[in-house]
Amino acid sequence: MRLATIRTADGNAAVRVDDDAAVELGAADLGAFLADPAWRAAAENADGPRHDLAGLDYAPPIPRPEKVICVGLNYRTHILEMGRELPAYPALFAKYARALVGAYDPVELPAGSAEVDWEAELGVVVGATVRHASLEQAAAAIAGYTVVNDVTARDYQYRSVQWLQGKTFERSTPVGPWLVTGIQPGEVSCRVDGDVVQRADTADLVFGPADLIAYISKIITLVPGDIIATGTPGGVGHARKPPRYLGEGSELVTRVEGVGELRNRIVKGE
Amino acid sequence: MRLATIRTADGNAAVRVDDDAAVELGAADLGAFLADPAWRAAAENADGPRHDLAGLDYAPPIPRPEKVICVGLNYRTHILEMGRELPAYPALFAKYARALVGAYDPVELPAGSAEVDWEAELGVVVGATVRHASLEQAAAAIAGYTVVNDVTARDYQYRSVQWLQGKTFERSTPVGPWLVTGIQPGEVSCRVDGDVVQRADTADLVFGPADLIAYISKIITLVPGDIIATGTPGGVGHARKPPRYLGEGSELVTRVEGVGELRNRIVKGE
Repeated sequence: MRLATIRTADGNAAVRVDDDAAVELGAADLGAFLADPAWRAAAENADGPRHDLAGLDYAPPIPRPEKVICVGLNYRTHILEMGRELPAYPALFAKYARALVGAYDPVELPAGSAEVDWEAELGVVVGATVRHASLEQAAAAIAGYTVVNDVTARDYQYRSVQWLQGKTFERSTPVGPWLVTGIQPGEVSCRVDGDVVQRADTADLVFGPADLIAYISKIITLVPGDIIATGTPGGVGHARKPPRYLGEGSELVTRVEGVGELRNRIVKGE
Repeated sequence: MRLATIRTADGNAAVRVDDDAAVELGAADLGAFLADPAWRAAAENADGPRHDLAGLDYAPPIPRPEKVICVGLNYRTHILEMGRELPAYPALFAKYARALVGAYDPVELPAGSAEVDWEAELGVVVGATVRHASLEQAAAAIAGYTVVNDVTARDYQYRSVQWLQGKTFERSTPVGPWLVTGIQPGEVSCRVDGDVVQRADTADLVFGPADLIAYISKIITLVPGDIIATGTPGGVGHARKPPRYLGEGSELVTRVEGVGELRNRIVKGE
């Protein structure tokens, strides 16, 4: 089942995206919809107004999540090939919701950055309130998966030892187009102007979705709509020799097999 | 003028705290109140239901800010005495709103941490929507000042290179009791079980409140109710020899001259 938030003439609407149409779920967005503990059954049974698939305007699936939690280096193969040891704990950092844009929206180049890079990631959407979750409870708290590109201004990221300022530029992080329930995600990949720049199997994550939910829930309560960006594999532009960055007009395609695809044009930001 | 959010039998209420009573402002909390661009005049003129000062139950002034933005090492004297150079850019990191508690609430010891430390800080509350603000616009966007203790689980903070997980434990960060408008803050200090452990002049900040608002607004739009914790001076427990940490029953008093005082008892968390 694919669930999304679309922009309509009457504002945002949560929808179930079927093969032939998008069906309204009766909530202002998917964040509000997931707050109902009975959301799965409600989504399956929804029979609201329908929208043609062609021309759907996707907002971020959760336009204003309470938390966006990002994970650093988390792909086993990439960590080992860099000669590092596997970490005992995930590296966690935050992003503000205002950084998010929809799956086909323009991604804004941070004014003042000359080193804007890609980071294709599997996104996990939380579907229940959990605190001190066991692995089993954590797995059950996954609403579904989505696609994230944690677009990063490297120069800002490394201005201090904390990465936030390179990670949370306004309208820089595409998410979507939907969350998909009941599947196992496959390969994550990123293409820039047609070149495949990242490709990895999400099964290679050191800390998988349930691990992350269990771990984070020992720190703070996770709530429906929280988004976890699970980390990016090798192949970022900053590590290339010479480095490669995104520029005005670049086309960024981010894909997670079994989940979906983001297609974003890079534009000059404010 | 002192503005706060108090807990009443009917839920939260924004109030002006006068010398003889707290006067309701007609908003559910200070976050909602500050969203009105005319909030200053509305606060001055408010004449709503009154509450005795004795027994006021203070919520965090902004119970659910869109952003809590924290600053790392930011006191000139402390940086220089540690033999470091003054930074060219602030170190910014985030905290989730769910970590906040009120000025006299219990502060919860993170389960699993044995190194819970204090960080007395001047808090700045944003009072206008600003993006790419000049220093002058930034100064005008300060709603007022509050007191923050960025209580930190050092062991969690240093589990990875990103500090978030040591900084955002549920109900660990006291803020309040109010925001004060139209003043210049003075000395920031922290006492633990009666011992003065931190004391510094907020004029010694490398990046002052307006600098921070101007800088952050080049990255992301700041909105009314956003809170900036401006960093802590020397004297934290982790840097002592031997180190000193907070434990169950510790009394934590955090003060900013001209602004107010937090008094929190440390209790065992969930």
